[in-house]
Amino acid sequence: MATVQDRKYVGQSVEKVDALERVTGRAQYGADLYMSGMLHAKALRSPYAHARIKNIDTSKAEQVEGVKAVITHKDLPVPSDTATSFGGELMIALKDLQRLTMAHDKALFDGHTVAVVAATSPDVAEQAASLIQVEYEPLPPVGDVVSAMDDSAALLHEDLFTKTLGDPPTKASNVATYLEDGRGDMEQAWKDSDVVVEDTYDTLMVHQGYLEPQACVARVDGDGTVNIWTSNQGTYNVQRQLSALLDLPQDKMIVTPMEIGGGFGGKIYTILEPLAILLSKKSGGAPVKMVMDRNEVFRGTGPGSPAHLTVKVGAKNDGTITGCYVRMVYDAGAFPGSPIAGATVVSFGPYKCENMRLEAYDVVTNKPRVQAYRAPGGTPVGFAVETVMDMVAEKVGMDPLQFRKHNAVVEGDLMTNNRPLNSIGLTEMLDEIEKHPCWTSTLEGPNRGRGLAIGFWLGATLTSSSVIMVHADGTVTVTTGQVDLTGIRTTMKQMTAEELQIPIEDVNVRVVDTNSAPYTDLSAGSRSTWTQSIAIQRAAESAISQMKAHAAEQLKVEPEDVEYADRRFWVREDPEQAMGWFDVARNSVRRGNGPVCGEGSVTRVQSAPTFGANVADVEVDPGTGKVKLLRYTCFQDVGCAINPVQVEGQIQGGAVQGIGWSLYEYYHYDEKGVMRNPSLLDYRMPTALDLPMIDTVLIEKPASEGPYGARGVGEVPIVPPPGAIANAIYQATGVRMNKLPMTPENVFWALKDNGNGK
Amino acid sequence: MATVQDRKYVGQSVEKVDALERVTGRAQYGADLYMSGMLHAKALRSPYAHARIKNIDTSKAEQVEGVKAVITHKDLPVPSDTATSFGGELMIALKDLQRLTMAHDKALFDGHTVAVVAATSPDVAEQAASLIQVEYEPLPPVGDVVSAMDDSAALLHEDLFTKTLGDPPTKASNVATYLEDGRGDMEQAWKDSDVVVEDTYDTLMVHQGYLEPQACVARVDGDGTVNIWTSNQGTYNVQRQLSALLDLPQDKMIVTPMEIGGGFGGKIYTILEPLAILLSKKSGGAPVKMVMDRNEVFRGTGPGSPAHLTVKVGAKNDGTITGCYVRMVYDAGAFPGSPIAGATVVSFGPYKCENMRLEAYDVVTNKPRVQAYRAPGGTPVGFAVETVMDMVAEKVGMDPLQFRKHNAVVEGDLMTNNRPLNSIGLTEMLDEIEKHPCWTSTLEGPNRGRGLAIGFWLGATLTSSSVIMVHADGTVTVTTGQVDLTGIRTTMKQMTAEELQIPIEDVNVRVVDTNSAPYTDLSAGSRSTWTQSIAIQRAAESAISQMKAHAAEQLKVEPEDVEYADRRFWVREDPEQAMGWFDVARNSVRRGNGPVCGEGSVTRVQSAPTFGANVADVEVDPGTGKVKLLRYTCFQDVGCAINPVQVEGQIQGGAVQGIGWSLYEYYHYDEKGVMRNPSLLDYRMPTALDLPMIDTVLIEKPASEGPYGARGVGEVPIVPPPGAIANAIYQATGVRMNKLPMTPENVFWALKDNGNGK
Repeated sequence: MATVQDRKYVGQSVEKVDALERVTGRAQYGADLYMSGMLHAKALRSPYAHARIKNIDTSKAEQVEGVKAVITHKDLPVPSDTATSFGGELMIALKDLQRLTMAHDKALFDGHTVAVVAATSPDVAEQAASLIQVEYEPLPPVGDVVSAMDDSAALLHEDLFTKTLGDPPTKASNVATYLEDGRGDMEQAWKDSDVVVEDTYDTLMVHQGYLEPQACVARVDGDGTVNIWTSNQGTYNVQRQLSALLDLPQDKMIVTPMEIGGGFGGKIYTILEPLAILLSKKSGGAPVKMVMDRNEVFRGTGPGSPAHLTVKVGAKNDGTITGCYVRMVYDAGAFPGSPIAGATVVSFGPYKCENMRLEAYDVVTNKPRVQAYRAPGGTPVGFAVETVMDMVAEKVGMDPLQFRKHNAVVEGDLMTNNRPLNSIGLTEMLDEIEKHPCWTSTLEGPNRGRGLAIGFWLGATLTSSSVIMVHADGTVTVTTGQVDLTGIRTTMKQMTAEELQIPIEDVNVRVVDTNSAPYTDLSAGSRSTWTQSIAIQRAAESAISQMKAHAAEQLKVEPEDVEYADRRFWVREDPEQAMGWFDVARNSVRRGNGPVCGEGSVTRVQSAPTFGANVADVEVDPGTGKVKLLRYTCFQDVGCAINPVQVEGQIQGGAVQGIGWSLYEYYHYDEKGVMRNPSLLDYRMPTALDLPMIDTVLIEKPASEGPYGARGVGEVPIVPPPGAIANAIYQATGVRMNKLPMTPENVFWALKDNGNGK
Repeated sequence: MATVQDRKYVGQSVEKVDALERVTGRAQYGADLYMSGMLHAKALRSPYAHARIKNIDTSKAEQVEGVKAVITHKDLPVPSDTATSFGGELMIALKDLQRLTMAHDKALFDGHTVAVVAATSPDVAEQAASLIQVEYEPLPPVGDVVSAMDDSAALLHEDLFTKTLGDPPTKASNVATYLEDGRGDMEQAWKDSDVVVEDTYDTLMVHQGYLEPQACVARVDGDGTVNIWTSNQGTYNVQRQLSALLDLPQDKMIVTPMEIGGGFGGKIYTILEPLAILLSKKSGGAPVKMVMDRNEVFRGTGPGSPAHLTVKVGAKNDGTITGCYVRMVYDAGAFPGSPIAGATVVSFGPYKCENMRLEAYDVVTNKPRVQAYRAPGGTPVGFAVETVMDMVAEKVGMDPLQFRKHNAVVEGDLMTNNRPLNSIGLTEMLDEIEKHPCWTSTLEGPNRGRGLAIGFWLGATLTSSSVIMVHADGTVTVTTGQVDLTGIRTTMKQMTAEELQIPIEDVNVRVVDTNSAPYTDLSAGSRSTWTQSIAIQRAAESAISQMKAHAAEQLKVEPEDVEYADRRFWVREDPEQAMGWFDVARNSVRRGNGPVCGEGSVTRVQSAPTFGANVADVEVDPGTGKVKLLRYTCFQDVGCAINPVQVEGQIQGGAVQGIGWSLYEYYHYDEKGVMRNPSLLDYRMPTALDLPMIDTVLIEKPASEGPYGARGVGEVPIVPPPGAIANAIYQATGVRMNKLPMTPENVFWALKDNGNGK
């Protein structure tokens, strides 16, 4: 392994390999696939947030010319026992995935799929779907987690009993899970505190806002093989979900990744795929394409989870935190599974504290079942905690940065889950902020303020695999099942060239289908690049060792006597006896043990925790409540920036999504639980015109494991924005914001309530 | 490894996995692929067999609306030095492949590609191609090998000098190569002979007659990656040929196999692929499809090689062969490369003889460059040798079968190449014939006769690889680059289930593209199934050992303490401690060394020689010369019939092709070297109406290497037919046939010349 100074490709901003295809519109996404004889499918969706389905009559739709198949929940197979045992791997319980895929006895949210039609054109399918007659009995909708927990609330699921550490409940409720964790003595903590701050926060449902709507094509072959082409964040999770959901063996389920136009956690569970498969089967094996429009994306996919949070923090007058408490109620939408685990880890992640208590509720409401959204669960709790920390700092009279430096965790300190941190760069990052002009400069002018917030993300590990094959001409193909969500073909190309010590132009990385490469978990949780750095290293070691064996055979020595560097194999004791990479490769395909094929897998490695921080300068219009971002700087410990431009892009993208969540975006539900703004005209996402340049500062403190010490970089950037902006608004106006988004309207009313500023 | 008796799947006639797709027309062949924005290409072909090209004017074609690109030989890149070094792997010299792909200074056969047009529809492309103006200077065509070797013959290539063991020639000729081989003392052999028979034979050019015309689609991506979808017998040979021809690295060359509708050796080198790639490149990366019609298949692909042969055999009166001599002149078509190596091995392969001499000439003529055709080179020489052997047997007064039994080679005897034979089943096969009703029954009636011929094929080995992946649900996918030409997905499925000891329905075999599986040589030379039996065995060993390691981790023992059989892993010392296949698989993807992925490769194994024999009963119409087959039986030592029905299908198919070659098929060239019958109406192939049932008798003498002792079965069946039929005609009429095909016309004139029968 090369030292940092010697690295040739790792650390370089190599251009994305797919850049040209993407900017010229030639990259093939899920919707770009055409096959002869292909059918098009359209769904009929529930107009009610909560309704009993008494009858579905598809007969008129079936009679429309061009309609080849119509399905309802009755077409879903009953899951087998084997399938059930995969529940834990699916990110959603199997029976919930079934009822989410198509409404069974009840429609549980506005947009819930009730029936689907496959026809010779999308127009015919849509028209036929509109002829399906559904008899609904509307039920009272459950709109938010607070009312959902009320005893008088309607129940979404009569068979849902709270999972809890305590006694199992005797009656059904809308609370799916209650978790608690902590350490130390909270009573004593509050007694020891000189100041205590407690406040309550609310955030609303937001969407990941990926550009590409969900799209897929399914085809069922004569031997029962199911082929799925889809834009999902992971192909093996699709394989396993579909395998469980449709009771199909995995070897008969080929999932091919198309280019993905953004996922951010929102393309993890299958939505359209099972429908397209059932329709293909029912129509005799025709390929079936299903593509959402934006309305369906908002109403029918899994957005980010909103939350209701109470945070309480105590500290001594010297700024030392004495106690941390959080009560988190996260909204899962219609089926259990909000990101309370992630939220728990994020909450007080950056802070050293002996006394902690965390309570978390996973609650169902009549909304789309949430999926992950970048650092899932982190943004709401980050908003609450960072605002409270800012208040505590002010109360003890400390600068917000100094307060955080004073309480920052270091290696060996306990996380909220009571496990010790390995190598982290929080202190180094805070030191960078301290000397950066974004922090040291003076912010002048009225109604302006500067806010700081920090954030934590632990990151997922799971399993990653790659295979390195050396061709007869010495060029190299890397195959992997790792979906390229964030530029991984480019970074894997860099890492492979680095490890094999060959020119980067001789390496090509291909993301292949589930049945052409070993199991790899999805691209999510900030895990892909850094776990692949280990998988690639192992695959490269295996490939080089096979190349050495080939060289040894021809140099007539033992493999262990062969050395390798920079495309040259030589005999250790007699360096003149040598062969080049090309000659060894050429001979390998027809000699000795045959073609060189090195496999590398990694599973259960140490996590690589990440910290990020944002410094935001804002100006608030006191007349309208409009918040203008003047300057925005992101700091992050990335361990090692394998491709700095890509890393900066991740940080900028995450910050902008966090800014959207902070200032603009929300699902606007009416009192009937119907979404009023399911279009990009009405659902306001930030554009380039709304934003200053997002500056980035990369800190590179190597992680504990992996060849370059890289950390996952994609998620933590979305944690600090709301805290940084809320703290800046406070500095500008003297008003603390307690709910997201901080739209002009919300800020205006907050200013009104608080006497219009400091 | 299970014993023969214990085998569950190997040896069973498992139904072809792709049977339903094929019979329902849903299988996707090269021509079935559609892509948005796809262009269609059509070639302009030379109407002359031999002509200098003085000018090509494409300007009018380029102006046709809808035309996107026009190419001529000037668009082919100059091969790099690296590329040249692959020459030996290409089955054709690189510079010849270049000039074959598109005519350069000369058109060398009727149908030689001169220019190609890509346009928005096939019709536009064809019309535009017809507007290309080519200025030809016709040259005298060289029609057959005998005239080609004449000093007065026109030269096809001014730079062609005969490769020979002797002094290099000083002037160019049409003889590309002269080989000689042998052993013993021929002078003495003839002296020691009581009888000597010598005769000369001629065969004509024939086509493999695959149902599916050549077809491919090419697309060049923005990063330079070339994607080719094609129906070829090998994807890696396409990759390497294109890589050399177009000077592209192999990692940027992705060859995806489509279903192949017959190959028989005729789909080995690239024909359309380089043209489609150049057109895609020139048109800015649009997908380009190119599909031949039948006329182009006959005129523009590589048919089977005709030959001119002289055979001389001497024997003692007791039937012992004393000397064997053959002079073989094979026709390569327009560029060197006729199958003289194969013909040499086949010639006297079945016969034990101490004195042998073989002379072989590879000669160019103005015809399409030949490709392999099932046991390439074997059928013409088999025809000649088996006819002469029949004559020798008659002269020494021996029954043809007894004569062959008397002289049959056994293990340890030398082949024509002077290397010893390993395990063979020739004697066992001849014993089977001796007691079979097709031989023991009496053939009654006038003008009827029974003929016997035997044949030999050594078979190729080369490199084969497969990868076995175990999914989390315990099902298994086998990926391989081995093109499924003859049902290999089915046999590999059987072998994998056998080796892993799991139910066959849990295994799925996928033939993937060149960049998704390790290097594998083409499906040809009767090598695929039996070399894959070794690769699969090795891959399975690796997979089971990885599964054992996972089981050991969970059973808390060392991997070497774990036993496995029938989906159960247990601790050797404590068999109650056990885990099932499914549980080990489920855990494997997220534990220990991660997903189970076993790779198996095989290269340079021992060959598995095969012998076949045909017994033909014919009736000859003395008035028309028409030969009717009354009964036809094929005997073959197959080593182990992994899938007996598939093996029988191979033997029947090979025999029928041999019958077509014997009785019906030939390229009809006029004196200008223009083919007069380039359609399936005029080129007569046998149909079911022409044939009796082809009976098969399988002999299973295990080969020296491989888990089941399987031998390649696809090629030897085409060697015996012309000898068996010619010998039967002799028995029916008393006339010896010296040329193929033995059409009614040829037989009629032979009868006339010989006084109309015995």
